[in-house]
Amino acid sequence: MKIGIVGLGLIGGSLGLDFRAAGHWVGGVSRQQATCDFAIAQGVADAAGSDFELLRDAEVVFVCTPLGVMQQTTQALIPFLKAETILTDVGSVKASVVESLEPLWPRFIGGHPMAGKEVAGIQAAQAHLFVDRPYVLTPSSNTPGDIKAVLIELIQTLGSKYYECSPAQHDRAVAWISHLPVMVSASLIAACQQEPETSSLALAQALASSGFRDTSRVGGGNSELGRMMAQYNRDELLRSIQFYRQSLGQIEMAIEQNRWDDLETFLSQTHQDRTNFVD
Amino acid sequence: MKIGIVGLGLIGGSLGLDFRAAGHWVGGVSRQQATCDFAIAQGVADAAGSDFELLRDAEVVFVCTPLGVMQQTTQALIPFLKAETILTDVGSVKASVVESLEPLWPRFIGGHPMAGKEVAGIQAAQAHLFVDRPYVLTPSSNTPGDIKAVLIELIQTLGSKYYECSPAQHDRAVAWISHLPVMVSASLIAACQQEPETSSLALAQALASSGFRDTSRVGGGNSELGRMMAQYNRDELLRSIQFYRQSLGQIEMAIEQNRWDDLETFLSQTHQDRTNFVD
Repeated sequence: MKIGIVGLGLIGGSLGLDFRAAGHWVGGVSRQQATCDFAIAQGVADAAGSDFELLRDAEVVFVCTPLGVMQQTTQALIPFLKAETILTDVGSVKASVVESLEPLWPRFIGGHPMAGKEVAGIQAAQAHLFVDRPYVLTPSSNTPGDIKAVLIELIQTLGSKYYECSPAQHDRAVAWISHLPVMVSASLIAACQQEPETSSLALAQALASSGFRDTSRVGGGNSELGRMMAQYNRDELLRSIQFYRQSLGQIEMAIEQNRWDDLETFLSQTHQDRTNFVD
Repeated sequence: MKIGIVGLGLIGGSLGLDFRAAGHWVGGVSRQQATCDFAIAQGVADAAGSDFELLRDAEVVFVCTPLGVMQQTTQALIPFLKAETILTDVGSVKASVVESLEPLWPRFIGGHPMAGKEVAGIQAAQAHLFVDRPYVLTPSSNTPGDIKAVLIELIQTLGSKYYECSPAQHDRAVAWISHLPVMVSASLIAACQQEPETSSLALAQALASSGFRDTSRVGGGNSELGRMMAQYNRDELLRSIQFYRQSLGQIEMAIEQNRWDDLETFLSQTHQDRTNFVD
């Protein structure tokens, strides 16, 4: 199959490695010549350049740019596509992306391969990045029935776990498990840093250990990505923050009112509930 | 040196292993005969039993019980101690512990070896648990000057990093980096679990990955320990939650008002500030 990848970063680059390893032809498009050279040298793509002309024969094209430029990139891309070409994206939010891309191309389906790494860029691309990771497709009522099967086969090539839901369901779920944690975790760092006593702040910084490290990790991550999550999944994120405030309020009230048994019951429940989310 | 350890769990057991390896005699006291047998078999103690009589010749005694029984345990212990014996504890909060134990014994100093593990109990005890970990002593104005030097030497034996501060300073610092993260993290789990739509909850649970895993880890931990943190460090924890609410509110307002540049600036700051706490 001839596969196009627009945007050669961590996700686009890793997709290229796996698709080529599976015997597909991969054409990569990036505005940076250095990225294209790197992609060829590392086996990410069979051909790479800044010209969409490269994807003239592509049967499936993955848009792998940052969320903020997906619409304009796709607008520039579509004059070069064959009418049969399947278009998909890898954005980490789906309702707003599907809303902006679907009208541009009839054979579009939204997607989200959920394999993040701490580092970004094609230098971080790696084979097998998506193995055992979720890959969500978000067909809408407008999605042509035949294109899903093509993508599912490619997703199986990656070794990913396939999920399917509406764009709205996707965004609600990732608000909970990805976007809310970033804001909760960033608030922790910001709160600690607000300690007005210099000596107490210095001692806290010196004593911080694995508990603080883990809880603060995603809140100390890529700020541009954090902004995009919020900007493109605003309503679901705000909704999840509302629920979060209630939970924090329950804990705070229990402590204020010295209801220690209630607090322990609450924490027993979270201990148990966590196993529904992660091992 | 003859060292007594009262309470043979993770911390007490690990201290015993290291002190014995350094050539000290270790007497361990536990109410459970099985724990005493295990301690002897695993080289945690030279002698172990349920009778405080065992510690008659001890020069330093570490109280390593849970916070909730430290006072009553120490009251039962002191009739058996020599007048010169140094008494210390390993509790994870200090102001309330020092307040309750210091009046019981003139040669007391509070301490906190900061090496937690996911698992508790003597089965989890291990040699070198405290290497490169902070060990905080919290002398008060009543602490006799000579006893600190004895403990610092033992702390060096463990390979720990030594810190010294007042009980109140300790509790303020650990509220930030240990106790607040537990409540922040538990609130995240509880909030997610509140999602009223069954299918969205199921999807969130299926898609949860490393970001959720790390952010929720300490909130899904030992509920009894979480309760004790709050109960014994109540005021500092409530103070830190107040600051936390403000930080979360700043993020929430930025999102509500679509101030995306402000949000990105906030997240850039937390990205940078985190490096003050952890590598």
